[in-house]
This record gives sequence, C-alpha cells and structure tokens, in this order.
Amino acid sequence: MSKKINDYIHFDWLPDKTLKLSLSEQIIGHIKKKISSGDWLIGQKLPSQRELAQTLGVNRSTIVEVYSELIALGIIESHYGKGTVIINSTWSLLFSNLSPEWSSYIESGIHKENLSTIQIINKLEFKENIIRLGTGEMSPDLFPHDMMKKVLNKIPARALSLNYLEPLGLLELRTVISNHLRIHGIDANPSQLLIVSGSLQALQLISMSILKPGSKIFVEEPSYIKSLNVFESSGMSMKGVPMDHFGLMPWMIDEKKQDFSNSILYTIPSFHNPTGINMSHERRLEVLNWCQSYQVPIIEDDVYRELWFEKEPPLPLKSLDQSGNVLYLGSSSKSLAPGLRVGWVAGPEAVVERLGDIKMQTDYGSSSLSQWALAEWIESGLYNEHLSVFRKELLLRRNFVLTLLDQYFSTLATWNIPEGGFYIWLKLNGNVSTDKLFKEAIKDNLLIHPGSLYSFKKNTFIRMSFSYAKLEDYAIGLKRLAEIIGQL
Amino acid sequence: MSKKINDYIHFDWLPDKTLKLSLSEQIIGHIKKKISSGDWLIGQKLPSQRELAQTLGVNRSTIVEVYSELIALGIIESHYGKGTVIINSTWSLLFSNLSPEWSSYIESGIHKENLSTIQIINKLEFKENIIRLGTGEMSPDLFPHDMMKKVLNKIPARALSLNYLEPLGLLELRTVISNHLRIHGIDANPSQLLIVSGSLQALQLISMSILKPGSKIFVEEPSYIKSLNVFESSGMSMKGVPMDHFGLMPWMIDEKKQDFSNSILYTIPSFHNPTGINMSHERRLEVLNWCQSYQVPIIEDDVYRELWFEKEPPLPLKSLDQSGNVLYLGSSSKSLAPGLRVGWVAGPEAVVERLGDIKMQTDYGSSSLSQWALAEWIESGLYNEHLSVFRKELLLRRNFVLTLLDQYFSTLATWNIPEGGFYIWLKLNGNVSTDKLFKEAIKDNLLIHPGSLYSFKKNTFIRMSFSYAKLEDYAIGLKRLAEIIGQL
Repeated sequence: MSKKINDYIHFDWLPDKTLKLSLSEQIIGHIKKKISSGDWLIGQKLPSQRELAQTLGVNRSTIVEVYSELIALGIIESHYGKGTVIINSTWSLLFSNLSPEWSSYIESGIHKENLSTIQIINKLEFKENIIRLGTGEMSPDLFPHDMMKKVLNKIPARALSLNYLEPLGLLELRTVISNHLRIHGIDANPSQLLIVSGSLQALQLISMSILKPGSKIFVEEPSYIKSLNVFESSGMSMKGVPMDHFGLMPWMIDEKKQDFSNSILYTIPSFHNPTGINMSHERRLEVLNWCQSYQVPIIEDDVYRELWFEKEPPLPLKSLDQSGNVLYLGSSSKSLAPGLRVGWVAGPEAVVERLGDIKMQTDYGSSSLSQWALAEWIESGLYNEHLSVFRKELLLRRNFVLTLLDQYFSTLATWNIPEGGFYIWLKLNGNVSTDKLFKEAIKDNLLIHPGSLYSFKKNTFIRMSFSYAKLEDYAIGLKRLAEIIGQL
Repeated sequence: MSKKINDYIHFDWLPDKTLKLSLSEQIIGHIKKKISSGDWLIGQKLPSQRELAQTLGVNRSTIVEVYSELIALGIIESHYGKGTVIINSTWSLLFSNLSPEWSSYIESGIHKENLSTIQIINKLEFKENIIRLGTGEMSPDLFPHDMMKKVLNKIPARALSLNYLEPLGLLELRTVISNHLRIHGIDANPSQLLIVSGSLQALQLISMSILKPGSKIFVEEPSYIKSLNVFESSGMSMKGVPMDHFGLMPWMIDEKKQDFSNSILYTIPSFHNPTGINMSHERRLEVLNWCQSYQVPIIEDDVYRELWFEKEPPLPLKSLDQSGNVLYLGSSSKSLAPGLRVGWVAGPEAVVERLGDIKMQTDYGSSSLSQWALAEWIESGLYNEHLSVFRKELLLRRNFVLTLLDQYFSTLATWNIPEGGFYIWLKLNGNVSTDKLFKEAIKDNLLIHPGSLYSFKKNTFIRMSFSYAKLEDYAIGLKRLAEIIGQL
C-alpha cells in the first residue's frame, strides 16, 4: 500500500469559482501547500496540463500559467517527454538520500512484478465486496469471540499494569509454550524460547543478526517466503529446492557446485504454504541428515502444524534434532489470531539470546497484553478447545471447496487434497497465464493468488485457500473464476 | 541481558560420583552436549583447568584429561595466555559470519562502557528487593487496573477476531489519535498517522528508511537517545547541542563548519529526558526557525507532554510548523502502559506511508489487541480520567522526593524542580564519579542511572526518577545513597 515515488499525483480538490482569488492563484496555492506540507514529495509527477485542466474543470491556459509560475519558483521542473516533476521540499531532500540498502530495497520492491501483485492484493483486501479466494487467514466468522472475552476477563490483575518485560518475552508465556511444545516432542525450556511479534519478525531478526549479505537460503520450490523481501532486502539470495509428494528433496541440491559455509535451509514441513504438502517422517529424517552432513542450519517454520484434519503431522524436525541445528518457529497467527502478533522461536540459548537482544534494540519487546492473553488462551485449555472446533470447521470448508472444484474445474485444472492447513495448490491445464487471470479476476471482484508469487519458475498454479471467504462466496467466486478461465 | 561471546562459561552441573561412567567421561559428555545443543558457542571460554577442577570437585588431572580429549576432537582449542576456547558447532559457525553492520553493532555494544551499564541495569531491574531510583516508568501501583478491566470488557466483538490490519495501523485508533492530537494543536488526519510499537520502533524505522549512514543527528546535550544504539547502529553520528533552562539552543550549533544536507534534529521539548527541562514557547519558535533556515528536519519526541503537574507545556513544535518539517512522536508507554507497545508518528503523508511500508515488511503491524485497547482507552474518556489522577500522584511523588533530597542531599548536590515528567537531574558537588557510585550503590541493592549514560561530556549527574519506586523505598534508598556518596 505504499505510495510510489513515481506515481502521478492525485488531485482530490477543486478551485472555488466564487472566490475573488483567481483560479490560477488558487491552484498554485494548493500545490504549494501540498508540497510544503510534505504530502507530495520530490520526484512525484504532476498530471499533464491537459489532464489537470480537465480534472479541475478549468481552461488549459490557466494550467499553463500555473506550471510556468511553479517552474519559475523552482518548485517543479518540466521536461519534454518526461512530464512535470516536483523538485523541492524538506523531507523530500532526505528521501532523495535514502540509505543505499533501503532505497535499492524499495526500488526493487516497486519494480518487480511479483511485489506489485502483493501490493495490489494488500490494497484490494480492504475493498468492499471483494471475494478473497487465496487469503491465508482464518475467517473472522470462525473466531471464538466468547472464548476471547473469557480470556480477557481472566488475565490476572498484576498482568494489567503492563510494564516492560524481560528481553526474551513474558516468562509466564514462555513457560506455557515450553510445556505446549512438549506435546510435539520439542524439549525447549523457557530460556531457549524467544517471544516475537509473529514469525515474520523472527525471520527479520535472523536476517539482521545471524546471516550475512551473500548468504544462500535454500527453500522449497515453490515457497511462500519467495513472496517476501525479508532475506533479499538484506542481500541474501534464495534457491528453490524441488519437492515431491513427501516434501523438499535435499538431494536435488547440487552439492558439488555449492559452498555451504553461508547457507541455511528454510522449510515449512507441515501443510506447506502454498502446496499443502505434509512432509513425511522419513523425509524429515533425510532433510535433517543432509543438513547435518553439510553443516547447514535449518529454520523450521511450523505455523500450520496444529491445523491437521484427521491425523497429526509427523514430529517436527526440531524434536528429532540432537545437535541444536534447528531453529523452530511457531505462531498464533494461523491457528488463533494474526492480530495478536505473537510468535516464538525455539533454539539454542545463545542464538535465542542474540535474537532477543536485537529485538530489544528494535522495539523493546512485543505487546504484554497480547502475551498475557495468549498465555491465558493456552493455559486455560481454551486454545486446545478452539483448535478442535477449528479443525472440524476447516475440514468442512476444505470439503466444500473440493466439491466446488470438482463441479467447475474438473476439465480446467488438477489439484491436491490437503490433510491440513489452509491451501489447495491448483494447477491450470494448458498455458493460461495466472498473472493475466489475476488481473481479469479483479475486474469481477475476485482476488486470487497467482503461482508466480511463490515459484521461481514459470507456472500455471493458483494458491487457493479455504480458510477465509464465506462458503457462499466460494460458490459464487469459483463458478465465476472457471468462466473467466474458459474465456481466456 | 545478552550473553557476551567472550564470557567465561558457567557450569551449573556436577558429575555424579556414584555412576559407573568415569568422571572425565561424564564431564566430556556434558561439555559436548552443551556445545552440540548450541547452548555454548564458538568463541566462548572454558574456565582454567584449576578453576574447573574446583567447581566440579574433581582432581585437576581429570580436567587435564578432559581438555586434552576435547582438543583432540577439534572441539576446543587452548593457547597459552589466551585460555581454552570453543571452536566448533553449527550455529556458531554462522555467528562467526555475522553481517558486518550487526557484528560491529554488537561489538560496540559489548565493549562500550555505557551500554554495559545499560545491560547491568536491564538485568538488575528484575532482581528482587532492588530499589530502582532512576527507572523511567509508571509504578505498577499507580496503574488503574479497574479502568483496564473496563476497557478490555468494552472492546467491540468485531475487534476480537484480530485479523491483520492496514499498513498504517488500526483506522479506529488513528481516528481517535487524530482527534486527541487536536487538543495539542496538531492537525493530522488519520492518513498522516502511523501506529508503531512504541517510539523506539519509530526511530528504528526512521533510521532504516529515511536517513543514510553518515547522517548527523543533532540532539540535546544531555539526551536519553545517547543511551540507545538506534542511530549509531545504522552508521549515523550524534552531536550534542547545549541546553539552558529554556531548552536546546540551536544557535550553539556551529553553522559554518556544518554541512546540513544529511542532518536531522531530534528533540524532547516537553519535560526532557533526563533533565526535566520544559522548552519555552519562544525557544520552540527559535528551534523551528533555525531548522527551517538550514532545511534540517525535526523529530519531536513528545512522549512526556501529557504528564504536566500544574500547567500544560507550550504547544508542540509540530503545531507551529507550517512546512511539514516536523515528524511528531507520541506514545502510550509513559502516560499509560509501556507493555501496550503502542506509539504513533504524525507527519507528511508520504513519509508516514514510507515508514508504514517498512514496518509491514518487518513485523506486519502492531498488536491489534493493544491497538483496540488504546482506542477504547482514549475514546471512552478513561485515558483522560486516568491522566488527571496520575498527574496528581506524580506531583505528590515529586514533592515527596524533593523533600527527601532537601533532607539528605542539600550539602551533596543541586537539582532542578521539574514541572512535569518523571525526572530530576541531580548534579553532585565536587568530583564524585557517578559510574563508581553506580557500582557501589548496587552492592546496597540501589539502582541509579549515572549521567554518563546520557551525556557526551564527563559529568557528575544522576538521573533520578520519582515515577517508579515505592515512597518508602525512596526514603530508604535516598538516605542510603547519600551515605554512600559521603563515603566516596
């Protein structure tokens, strides 16, 4: 949702023809005010004279006068073929001096096709009447409001003074999570746990404090992480590793060509995003062994683990790891509420402390209110209660969407049947461009997530989710999407 | 509270003499386990053979055997005069490859005297029975628990589904804050406001996304910001600008020697931390004008503004600024609860959007629960109700502490009488080293904040706060502190 520096400026103002002040003076005044207030920045473009005349309902000659005056004042500059650009203001002067890494970051963000898709998605998600067919969140309809009310009522009085917390996060929450992780075979005591504001922050802290520019991050091909800038913005590169139905295949990494000294492996073994693949126990051991032999540490992102339908996924890599090689990421964002912004990292004490130290220097810790609430959720048993309801709802939703797919997509696509998580990875037959489909679908108020966001290769995939939209919207949306595909 | 890489390792384990396994095998096993689990890192030092033998209650010859074996295994290395150091483990290999900026960051953090003081303070704050004479937080005793209960009960049901929010933060909260800022003469609509996780995060985002390495940050001499690494870690330098009783004196900046193109001014005009000085209206205008003439943008950190005792401080710089030159930081951390982790930035739209974009890429926004809670606090009027009680309590506390100072410090020090905020800036007579005093006071369970944390110059100041400790603890603590000073 960021404003692009190179965007044309939008006028949401009109001159007042009843005033004594001339139209050109009013327009000049308005433009100067917007620039001097910093709302408009250096480098932003003004509309062409003809367009602006039309927008403001004035003669073109008035705009000619306005632009000449502003050019004379040194506020704007006009070049044939390049248009008219703002060239002066205080904060703008600073913006032109963006620190190199972030400006290259932002630029690459703006110009790359995939990130612009993400920006469009972020924007349209808040549009009314849009049907979100790919959103990776729990539907607000499924949220257990009554339980949340109970939780908020049960937060202990001493908690409510909400002072600053220890660098690793609320001890009560770390203790609760430490016990909770034992269910999954993970033995991490509170001093081996760091509370973070969601697993994106964990990745950010890792990229800032452990990895160095030039590091190689091996990830599943395709992977959710490809749609983020967290590693690339710090100068690291991602390499996709092919998957089969059992998960990532480490032996497909060409060992001879690689120097593994600055490498790390990032994986989502349980109900992988976007493919829904659940890594088998044997494959987990193979991945662990491969990483152990090449001394490649592992980030295990396990935020979908608890969203299984009929059978728990195999034990986490972390629980099988005897050598402290795995940093384990968990979160309440997928299984309970993204807005709590609470996740955790389990790992060797020294690593966790390092990350915690950097976290303290960036935000003094995560919301105490959220941390107390989550501790209460888990400890009271309400979290598990919620999960058992949520799992059933998710399974119903999966089945409902699969029925719709059978109905409308059987000749158009193939897909997997996920056993947990949020996603169906739909492969369109033939040569349909899903990026084009994305744009066409928007015209019909349908928001889809094209495979180009996640894959390092050209493909015809769509990430469907069954977690977010209303069932009736899936019925309408998938029917319509099939029609659009038919037309393409 | 971070572990220093160069720390000696601490053994909190003893071999079991009843086991069949030899003592040396047990010790080797323990050390290997701690290293392979990542709890101990490359570069950390093991105790000397003599010390370790003593700690574990074994013969020195046993330890000689242990170390020889570990050296043979390539796990540790021993050099005469340098001690015995761990040299192998997976995550450790990564740590040795820290990205240059953060490793230099962490190193400077570890080795600089002031940050080590901060680390000791952070650690001791969680020690039982310690009396915290300088802590800049509201005492948990003053926190309005009942109001907080009410607020949590009144959070609207739709809020409790806690999905991801817009990049600038919860619109309801931004609207409430926009209205609230009007009380202080600030005209910022919701699109000119960004919600952050406290003002430290705002500074972090500014340093990451607007400033470039080499930028100069002009700050008050002394300033709270000197105790942080937020700017220096990004390669910027801070320059202290002298203050008088009316605040920072911009004309003391040597204009001829300066290139202002990459400069910014950071100021805490209202109830300055640590001096308590409240910048006069005239001085505010002078600062604004100076910055305007030299095109130096301003960060106005106004988190203490609402904590006045008898009279509101003069209008914020932001309210006097017609040219979008001021970024305004506010927060609920000082006036309500640090643990909410909610602050805000008011500024030109384009700047705020840029910061919001970077924030989204680092943590997907601040806790929705905290944002809804704060919106409810302010909108319900409970926030203002709390403030009027809190102001009276703070004034009582200030007076109480001033009485104690009169009683115990009249021959030892001089101090100001603050009209708001948390701090008294105490200047010790003579040549007392406050860093030495800091260490001596710890022995008596007293925690003070020496002036060296905040000042660019050698000084004999202490930052006293009257906001945090219990009144009886101030009585005990200040009496004892005066005695210690007498002895020095």
